Amino acid sequence: MKNIVGSIDFMENLRGKSASFMLAMSTTKTYEIEGLSQAGLPGLIHLTPTLDAEFICTGQVKSLQCVPETLKGIPTPGLMTRAVHMLKPFKQIEILDLGVHTSPDLDCFNQYTFGIKPSDRIDTGANIDAKSVFEKGLAFAKEYKSESDYIILAECVPAGTTTALCSALALGYDCAGKFSSSFKNHPNDVKQITIDKALSNINEKQSVFEKLSCVSDNMLIFNAGFVIGAMQRDLKIVLAGGTQMAGVLLVINSILRENSQKIDSKNLALCTTKWVYEDFHSDIEGLLKMLDFEINAYCSEFDFTSSQHPALKLYDDGEAKEGVGAGAALVYGRLNGLEDEQIVKKVESFLG
Amino acid sequence: MKNIVGSIDFMENLRGKSASFMLAMSTTKTYEIEGLSQAGLPGLIHLTPTLDAEFICTGQVKSLQCVPETLKGIPTPGLMTRAVHMLKPFKQIEILDLGVHTSPDLDCFNQYTFGIKPSDRIDTGANIDAKSVFEKGLAFAKEYKSESDYIILAECVPAGTTTALCSALALGYDCAGKFSSSFKNHPNDVKQITIDKALSNINEKQSVFEKLSCVSDNMLIFNAGFVIGAMQRDLKIVLAGGTQMAGVLLVINSILRENSQKIDSKNLALCTTKWVYEDFHSDIEGLLKMLDFEINAYCSEFDFTSSQHPALKLYDDGEAKEGVGAGAALVYGRLNGLEDEQIVKKVESFLG
Repeated sequence: MKNIVGSIDFMENLRGKSASFMLAMSTTKTYEIEGLSQAGLPGLIHLTPTLDAEFICTGQVKSLQCVPETLKGIPTPGLMTRAVHMLKPFKQIEILDLGVHTSPDLDCFNQYTFGIKPSDRIDTGANIDAKSVFEKGLAFAKEYKSESDYIILAECVPAGTTTALCSALALGYDCAGKFSSSFKNHPNDVKQITIDKALSNINEKQSVFEKLSCVSDNMLIFNAGFVIGAMQRDLKIVLAGGTQMAGVLLVINSILRENSQKIDSKNLALCTTKWVYEDFHSDIEGLLKMLDFEINAYCSEFDFTSSQHPALKLYDDGEAKEGVGAGAALVYGRLNGLEDEQIVKKVESFLG
Repeated sequence: MKNIVGSIDFMENLRGKSASFMLAMSTTKTYEIEGLSQAGLPGLIHLTPTLDAEFICTGQVKSLQCVPETLKGIPTPGLMTRAVHMLKPFKQIEILDLGVHTSPDLDCFNQYTFGIKPSDRIDTGANIDAKSVFEKGLAFAKEYKSESDYIILAECVPAGTTTALCSALALGYDCAGKFSSSFKNHPNDVKQITIDKALSNINEKQSVFEKLSCVSDNMLIFNAGFVIGAMQRDLKIVLAGGTQMAGVLLVINSILRENSQKIDSKNLALCTTKWVYEDFHSDIEGLLKMLDFEINAYCSEFDFTSSQHPALKLYDDGEAKEGVGAGAALVYGRLNGLEDEQIVKKVESFLG
């Protein structure tokens, strides 16, 4: 575990403590824009959050009707989350449905629904009622019964780095080049055109929620509300993700600024992978330093050096970096006595 | 794990249960007497409790301004405590400040302060308000909210074996030669002169607290109060240490005697290292047999036989024996499935 900003103490204090793993799933139809996301199976990207949720909970992907003969592409970072959960289980896994195409086929696991629909493509307008989604997050934090010492809040939103970047730009942050992508060679042309179009639909006079309604995704907005509500209740939260979770923090920052409010962030941290931290095409540290409040942030030191599996090597090559809470799950594993070698072997066992 | 006195059952019953590790730090200026303590870096002994607290919590020693080029002397037994915590974390680590030079630089971790100052050299009078310190321990036990199945109560007090021996002698126990030292070849001359001087400042007509005020340290007195209070609440406590923790028990014994009180000690045990148990220069078993109440006591069987590291071999050579709860941490590790080999490797990894 490496300390990005803040002190090592917050995460060290969670050593040995129990964690609830919460996956915030959402779909933005922005993923339909050709060449923007590779998070998932070709033609089935709309199912990615659903399949990831099923896989981390049960080890199966029930909603995948046709199992592809050869699994091309990059294996989901959910493999690492699942591996850690098998070796050192989370106290529970809970699923937040923030608008997905198909609900995960899961019994027994807590699945929270909020009546939120998938959002639309940001280039033509995301069509979100941001204030309502935010308030649903806030209300959920107030009602939520925690059974663990802390919450690991992860996300799965295909094309979510595009909506996160666009949201941060819309809110006035000087963050071009600071958000990562699930690609090694960023599809900057398509991404830029998409974002330019999206930003042309908003104007500076609009409120934070009005802007987000046009250019954001449900995960960013809901989680902003959830985190603000959770901090008022002294729930401990580790935001499990890279620049998208930094995007949640920037949204929080803007909402607080607009309302001249402050947040006590002593119970809040962000935790990502070393692939995000070391990525030359993005700058998570830079994003975190834009916040008006203090934040502790960390990354795992895990990599696939000891593996021979070519699909896993793609992570070390920077082809994939983070998602489904992989970074925080890896750190959670280390904080509970797991060795990287054990996790590598377990991940390999999923690939056959 | 070896059973020293009592039965094996108490500790076996704690197998798999969660533990809070509590470090009672204190400074007695007795450490300033040349040749009396080697618990720490030369010239920086006053920082030993602070650095040990920082290290077991975070793996860092933040308050050490100048990192010595070669770390001479004996590595802190806190290395073993930290190793166990990394492999099989305690539920939490909490720090009790019973009078230290510099507060540990720790966020997030519970640090309890009681307005207790470092005590003075015992040869010129420790200058402790023993009754007040005892009552603070008692009050803390009543307020303390336990989040675990049991408490491992450790100590870090440089020169603490001298003050423990002196306290026991002052209370009339025939214990010469029964207390250990952090040295292999005990500095008996300096120690004897110091103790003789200290004892010349008290007389037999004084109460237990009056005597302790002159010749003891805060850790012994506070913990006596804490243990008595905890037993009234049925909290389970493992005293994590060697003859100093036996000293806490002797103090408890004398307070109870003076007030014709009894203690139900069924929830109390002591756990130390095999280096203390096998030490020819001290006799922890003999000390425990002086108690009017029953006690369960144990030692770890861990040693550094499998290590090649010369600094660690000093433990097997009897140059260092116990501290920072090492013995109880090692037993806790074994009770939770750790192998000695894993712990040895983790300790070695700290030394590079």
